[in-house]
Amino acid sequence: MHMSVVSRLFLSRFLVPHIQKSFCSTVRKKRFNWGKNKQHRNILLPILKTMTDPKVEAELAPLRAAVKEQGDIVRALKAEGAPELDVKKAVAELKLRKKVLDERELKLAPFVSSFDRAKMEDLLKRRFFYDQSFSIYGGISGQYDFGPMGCALKTNMLSAWRQFFVLEEQMLEVDCSILTLEPVLKASGHVDRFADLMVKDLKTGECFRLDHLIKAHLEKLAAEPKTPQSVKEECADIVIKLDGMSKNEMDDVLKKYNIKSPLTKNDLSEPMEFNLMFATQIGPSGLIKGYLRPETAQGIFVNFKRLLEFNSGRLPFAAAQIGNAFRNEISPRSGLIRVREFTMAEIEHFCDPTDKSHAKFSDVETTQMVLYSACNQMDGKPAERITIGEAVRSNLVANETLGYFMARIQKFMISVGIDPEKLRFRQHMGNEMAHYACDCWDAECLTSYGWVECVGCADRSAYDLTQHFKATGVRLSAEKHLPEPQTREIVEPVLNKGIIGKEFKKDAKTICDALAALDLNSVSAVEESLNTNGKYELLVDDKEFVLTKDMISIKKSTKTFHVEEIIPSVIEPSFGIGRIMYALFEHNFKMRDGDEQRTYLALPPLVAPLKASILPLSSNPEFQPFIKMLSSELSQNGISFKVDDSGGSIGKRYARTDEIAIPFGITIDFDTLKEPHSVTLRERDSMTQVRVKVNEVASVIKDLSLAKITWEDVQSKYPKFEAQEGSK
Amino acid sequence: MHMSVVSRLFLSRFLVPHIQKSFCSTVRKKRFNWGKNKQHRNILLPILKTMTDPKVEAELAPLRAAVKEQGDIVRALKAEGAPELDVKKAVAELKLRKKVLDERELKLAPFVSSFDRAKMEDLLKRRFFYDQSFSIYGGISGQYDFGPMGCALKTNMLSAWRQFFVLEEQMLEVDCSILTLEPVLKASGHVDRFADLMVKDLKTGECFRLDHLIKAHLEKLAAEPKTPQSVKEECADIVIKLDGMSKNEMDDVLKKYNIKSPLTKNDLSEPMEFNLMFATQIGPSGLIKGYLRPETAQGIFVNFKRLLEFNSGRLPFAAAQIGNAFRNEISPRSGLIRVREFTMAEIEHFCDPTDKSHAKFSDVETTQMVLYSACNQMDGKPAERITIGEAVRSNLVANETLGYFMARIQKFMISVGIDPEKLRFRQHMGNEMAHYACDCWDAECLTSYGWVECVGCADRSAYDLTQHFKATGVRLSAEKHLPEPQTREIVEPVLNKGIIGKEFKKDAKTICDALAALDLNSVSAVEESLNTNGKYELLVDDKEFVLTKDMISIKKSTKTFHVEEIIPSVIEPSFGIGRIMYALFEHNFKMRDGDEQRTYLALPPLVAPLKASILPLSSNPEFQPFIKMLSSELSQNGISFKVDDSGGSIGKRYARTDEIAIPFGITIDFDTLKEPHSVTLRERDSMTQVRVKVNEVASVIKDLSLAKITWEDVQSKYPKFEAQEGSK
Repeated sequence: MHMSVVSRLFLSRFLVPHIQKSFCSTVRKKRFNWGKNKQHRNILLPILKTMTDPKVEAELAPLRAAVKEQGDIVRALKAEGAPELDVKKAVAELKLRKKVLDERELKLAPFVSSFDRAKMEDLLKRRFFYDQSFSIYGGISGQYDFGPMGCALKTNMLSAWRQFFVLEEQMLEVDCSILTLEPVLKASGHVDRFADLMVKDLKTGECFRLDHLIKAHLEKLAAEPKTPQSVKEECADIVIKLDGMSKNEMDDVLKKYNIKSPLTKNDLSEPMEFNLMFATQIGPSGLIKGYLRPETAQGIFVNFKRLLEFNSGRLPFAAAQIGNAFRNEISPRSGLIRVREFTMAEIEHFCDPTDKSHAKFSDVETTQMVLYSACNQMDGKPAERITIGEAVRSNLVANETLGYFMARIQKFMISVGIDPEKLRFRQHMGNEMAHYACDCWDAECLTSYGWVECVGCADRSAYDLTQHFKATGVRLSAEKHLPEPQTREIVEPVLNKGIIGKEFKKDAKTICDALAALDLNSVSAVEESLNTNGKYELLVDDKEFVLTKDMISIKKSTKTFHVEEIIPSVIEPSFGIGRIMYALFEHNFKMRDGDEQRTYLALPPLVAPLKASILPLSSNPEFQPFIKMLSSELSQNGISFKVDDSGGSIGKRYARTDEIAIPFGITIDFDTLKEPHSVTLRERDSMTQVRVKVNEVASVIKDLSLAKITWEDVQSKYPKFEAQEGSK
Repeated sequence: MHMSVVSRLFLSRFLVPHIQKSFCSTVRKKRFNWGKNKQHRNILLPILKTMTDPKVEAELAPLRAAVKEQGDIVRALKAEGAPELDVKKAVAELKLRKKVLDERELKLAPFVSSFDRAKMEDLLKRRFFYDQSFSIYGGISGQYDFGPMGCALKTNMLSAWRQFFVLEEQMLEVDCSILTLEPVLKASGHVDRFADLMVKDLKTGECFRLDHLIKAHLEKLAAEPKTPQSVKEECADIVIKLDGMSKNEMDDVLKKYNIKSPLTKNDLSEPMEFNLMFATQIGPSGLIKGYLRPETAQGIFVNFKRLLEFNSGRLPFAAAQIGNAFRNEISPRSGLIRVREFTMAEIEHFCDPTDKSHAKFSDVETTQMVLYSACNQMDGKPAERITIGEAVRSNLVANETLGYFMARIQKFMISVGIDPEKLRFRQHMGNEMAHYACDCWDAECLTSYGWVECVGCADRSAYDLTQHFKATGVRLSAEKHLPEPQTREIVEPVLNKGIIGKEFKKDAKTICDALAALDLNSVSAVEESLNTNGKYELLVDDKEFVLTKDMISIKKSTKTFHVEEIIPSVIEPSFGIGRIMYALFEHNFKMRDGDEQRTYLALPPLVAPLKASILPLSSNPEFQPFIKMLSSELSQNGISFKVDDSGGSIGKRYARTDEIAIPFGITIDFDTLKEPHSVTLRERDSMTQVRVKVNEVASVIKDLSLAKITWEDVQSKYPKFEAQEGSK
C-alpha cells in the first residue's frame, strides 16, 4: 500500500494496524496506511427502526451474507499467509460488498427518503447561518463564513463543550500557535506523509486527485457497450485494487489507458504527491518554513512537559484545545463536511500505559451505546446496542478510559441536539487504524451524505510523545511512583585514566567513551575476559585496543529506585466542530405538519443561537417601555434575544423566529398593558403558549435555557394561552 | 513620505490625514502615511498622581514648554505653506521633544520605578500563563502558547467581551475565514502597502528593518569622540528625518555611510519592501494566492450585504468578530505586545454618514474619561479629564457614536481589571490618521514598555465598503428612507430600434448601448440638437453616426423616490486581546506587604482563570467526601476551580493559588467534619476569611464571581474566621 496517500478520514491520522487487540483478524504490520474511508457510506446503518423492520431485514439478508462470505475469505487468506496482492484484492471485494449493502440500507432508511437537503440549505443560506466566503469576489470552495446565527450556535456549542469536558473533567485547556515550525510537523509525520496523489492538466494547470480520475475513467469505459468483455473485467479489477496501488502502479494505469484531462483532453503530468498542509514562511528571511497546523493536537504534545509540571508531575491528566486547523484539500465538497479551514476541539488524556482504568468509569458504565465493531463490519452484521460497561468487560473496547470518553462523547452529542437514533460508534478495522494505535472508535452521525465521522476517539499509545522526543532529545516522560522501592544491581567499569592515557595517547578518550557506554551484558563480558585472560580486546571503529587489569576494574553495587520513568499513553477524543454543526442542522430541520413551506430548526435551547424573541403585537408606542424593560432584563440574565418589531402578522413573525431556531417567544399584547403586566410565552416545537408575568419571564427563560426546568414544568405552573397561529 | 512603510501601530491601518475636523493643525493631504508610532513612548503620561505632584510638574515644565514652542513652529510652517522637507524636519523635531518629555515623565511615575518585570515574567512562565511556542524545538520569536491559566483568562475575557458588546448591544457576530483570497486584500490596500522596508545580509541572509538599522548605525557614529562635529550634526539630522524618507533616500544614506551588516560586516542587499502578510496558496494548482488575514475586519466588510439583509435592511447596526490575525513581523519583540499571531475582537458599526448620533449616548454622557487630544499633544500639555458628553459637545470627539464606543471601551477595560489610573484615550494626530478617517482615538494602557495601544476606535467613513464595491462591482450600499418622498424629473431617449437596425446594421447595438448610457446633460444636448438641426451626431469609439428624428425621441417624466441609496460610514472599535492581557498582568501583579517573594495576581473574579480552590487541610480520608461534594457543586454552578490536596502548609498553598489569581479559597478543616458542616472561605486580595456552611459556599462564590455581591457583603453576613497565614 502506498505510503503517501493521505487519510481521507477527517479526524484520524496515520492509519495503519499495529497492535491487534480486540479485532477479529490479524493483519500484517504496515508502517502507514492512509486509508480512504471518507464518510463511511460503505458502512451499515444501525438505527433501530431499520434493524427491527423484518421486511427491510429480509431484503438486506442476502447482501449481509455476501459480506460475511467475503469476510471469511479475507480471514482465511490472512491466516494462511497468502500473497499480499491476493489479500488486497479480497479486502477490496469485501469493501465493495459492504458498500452495496450500505447503500441499500441507506435507501431503505425512512429519514433519508423524507429529508429535503435543498430546502434546508436554502434556509441556512437565506438566514445566513453560513455561506461561502468571499462570494462577492467569486468565492472559493472549501471555505465558509458563519453569519450571526451560525456563529452564535458555534459559540454556544463550544461553551457547552468547555463546560462538559474542560470544567467537569478539570482538563488543562491550552491555546497554541496555528503557524507551526516545520520540524514539529516533520516529527509528527505530516511533512512526509500527509499527502494525496494528483495529476495536472499540462495546459490548463487544473489538478485532479489521481484515484478519483482513474476510477471515473475506467468506470465510464466499462459502461460503454462496444468495450470488449475482457477490458470491462480488467477495468473492474483495477478499480477494486485502486485503494492499495502505489504511485508507479497508478502511473502505469494512466499510460496503459491513455487517460487524458477529462474535459480538455489535454495531456496530464506525471503523478505527484501533493501535501495537504498550507505552507508559508515565518519571518523575513524566507529561511524558516512553517505550516498552518493540520490539527491542534501537536500544540499539546510539544507542551507536554509544562503541562505535566502544571499538574504537579502527576498522571493521569487531560489537556484540551479548541482552535482552527487547515487542510489544503484538492477538491473540497459536501459543504461544511470537507473544508479547507475548520474548528476542532481536541483532548489528549495522558495516562500510565500499564493502567488505563478511569476513576469515573463507574459513572458511565450503564450507558447504552450503538457500537459497530470491526468484527460485525467484516461479518456483514449490523451495529449492536450494548452498555459501555459490557463493551469494556468483553474487551470489545480496549480500556476503561477509551470507554469513558466514548460514553461522554455520546452524552455531549445528544445534549447539543444530535438525534440518538442517528448516532453510532464505529470501530476502525485493522487496515484503517494507525500503526501505533491500540483501538479507535469514530462517533458517526447519519446525514444525507451517509454516515459522517464527527468525533474520533483513539488510543494512540505513546507514539506522539516518542516522536517529539526522538526529534528534540527532550524526554517527554513522566515519573511513576513504584508501588514499593526496587533494588537493582548496578555493574559499572572503573577506569584508570592515567594508565589508559599513557598507553593509548590520543585514542584514550575514544576508549573511555566506549567503555562508559557499555551495557550491562557487555560489562559482564569484560569482567569475564579480564578474569579468564587477564585482558579484554575492545573494538572501536574497526580498531582493536587491548586493555589489561591495571587499566580497568569492575565495580558492583546496588541502588534503590522509588520511581520509574514512563512515556505516557495518549487517549485522544477529537471533535470536528463544523461536521457536528452540519449534522445538527440536518437532525433538527423540521417542517410543520401540513405546511411544507413552514420549516424550522428544532435546536435545543442550550445551543440555540438566540434564546428568546420579543414580539410586540403592533407598533403601538405603549409597548415600547415593555420592550425596553424585557430587553434589559434578558441582557442582565445573559440571555441572547432578538426584538422583531417589523410589521407582519404575529404568525408570520413566529415562523421567522422558528427558522432561526429561537426556542421561546415573548409576545407583548394589549393585555400586557393591564396590571398585573403579563406577556405570552410560546415554545417553538410544540407551539403552545402560556401567560407569564412580565417580571418573571426572564428568569423562566433562563431556567429553560439551562435545562433546569422543562416546558412541561412551565405549562403546569402558568395558565395556558390559546391563540391561533399560522396566519401568514 | 514613502508609501510602503507599514503602520507600526498595531490596530490602526492606512494612516494618513484627510479630513481635518477636530484637529488644531491643518496638514497637507497625503495618500498613505504608515506612521511608526509603536507603543507611543513618546507620549505624555496623564495619570493623575504625576499631574498633581507640583515637584514633578516643576521638573516637567521646561520640557513642556519646549514641545509647545516646536508645536507652534510646525503650525506656522504649515499655515504659510512651507516646503515639505521643512515641515517634515520641524515635525521630527517636535516628536523628538515629545519623546524627551515622555521619557522623563515615565521615569517620574511611581509605578514604573517599583514594578519588577522580570519577577512578573518569572511567575507567568513558571505557572504557564504563556510561554514561547515550540521551545523544545528551539522556539521562534513572536509566537506564544497560552497554558491553562492564560487560556482560561483569555476565554473569560472573550466571554465578558461577548456579553458586554455582542449581547448587550445586539451586535451581529460573525466568524469568517482566516485564509483570504488575494483580491480581497488587494482592494483593502494590504497587498500593495502593508509592508516594511528591509535589507538583507548578502552572505548570511539575516534581515534588518532598514530604519532601525540606519538609526543604530548613525547614533553609534555620532557618539564616537573622533567623529567630526559636522558629521555628528548630519547624523542627528538624518535620524530626525528618517521617519519620512523614501526608499531611495534611505538607500542613499546606506551608501553614503557605507553601512554594513552590524555583526558580520558583510555587504547588504538593496532595500526591499517586505509585505507583512503571510502568503500561501489555496488549492493544489498553485494559481490561487491567499494570505492569512492581517485583521478580522475585512471578513465583515465582504459580508456587508448579507448582514444588512439579516438586519432587515435597516441602519444603524453593528457586526462583530473575534478571531486570529497574523502579521509577519521582521523582528517581533516586547513579549505579547508585538507578535506574529494574535487574537483580535473587532466591531464595525455601520451608520448613516449624515447621522452619527447614538440612541444610547445619553446612558454614557456623564462618563469621566482621560482624553489626550491632538491639540494637547502638540502643545506639550498633559491629558485631561473630561466627560464624554462634554467632549462630543465641544467637537473634540467627532460624533456621538465614536464617543459612545469610547465610553463603553473604558467601562469594559476597567471591568476586566485594567487600572483606571493607567488608561487614557489618545487622539491620532493629523499625520497618524488614515486618509479617509474622520477621527481616531486609541485606548492606551501604561505598562513598563510605556503607553501601549490596546484598543483603536476610529471613524473610518465609507472607505472599506467603497473599496470592495470598486473591486467587485457589487454595490455595498443601504437604502435610506427619505423623510418625505422626492419627485425628480426623468429624461430618457426612446429609440426606434427597427429603423436604427436597418440603417446601421451591425453597428446598431453599439449605438443603442451608447444612447442608453447617456447622462442627463447629454440627453438634453441630443434633444436640443434634434430640435435645432433635425439630427444628432453620435460619436462612439471615434466613429460618427448621424441620428435623425425618426430614430430617436426624448421622453420626459417625473418619478417619486421614497428611498435614497447611501454607502454607510463605519465606526470601528478594534481590540488587541493579547495586549490587553499583557496590560492586565502588569496592572494586577502585586507583592504582599513585607514579603517581596510572595507575589500574586489580583485579577478580578470576572476574568480570573479559576474562581475557587478547594484545600483540604490534610490528607485525612474523612475530607474526601467533602472534596467530592464541593467539586460537584462548583461544576454544576459553572464555577471553575482547582483542588490542591498536595502536601505543604495551608499558607504555602494559599500562596500558590494566589499566584494563579484564584480569588476564593475554600478550606476543609476538622470543624468541617462537625455538624452543621462548614468551611472557611478566603478572599485573595484582603486575605480575610469567613466561615460558611458547606452547602452555601458554591452559590456565594457564584454570586461573587458574577459581581452580584461583594466581599464586604459576604463579610457582613458570615462570621469572621481568624487564622494565621504566611506560614511557609
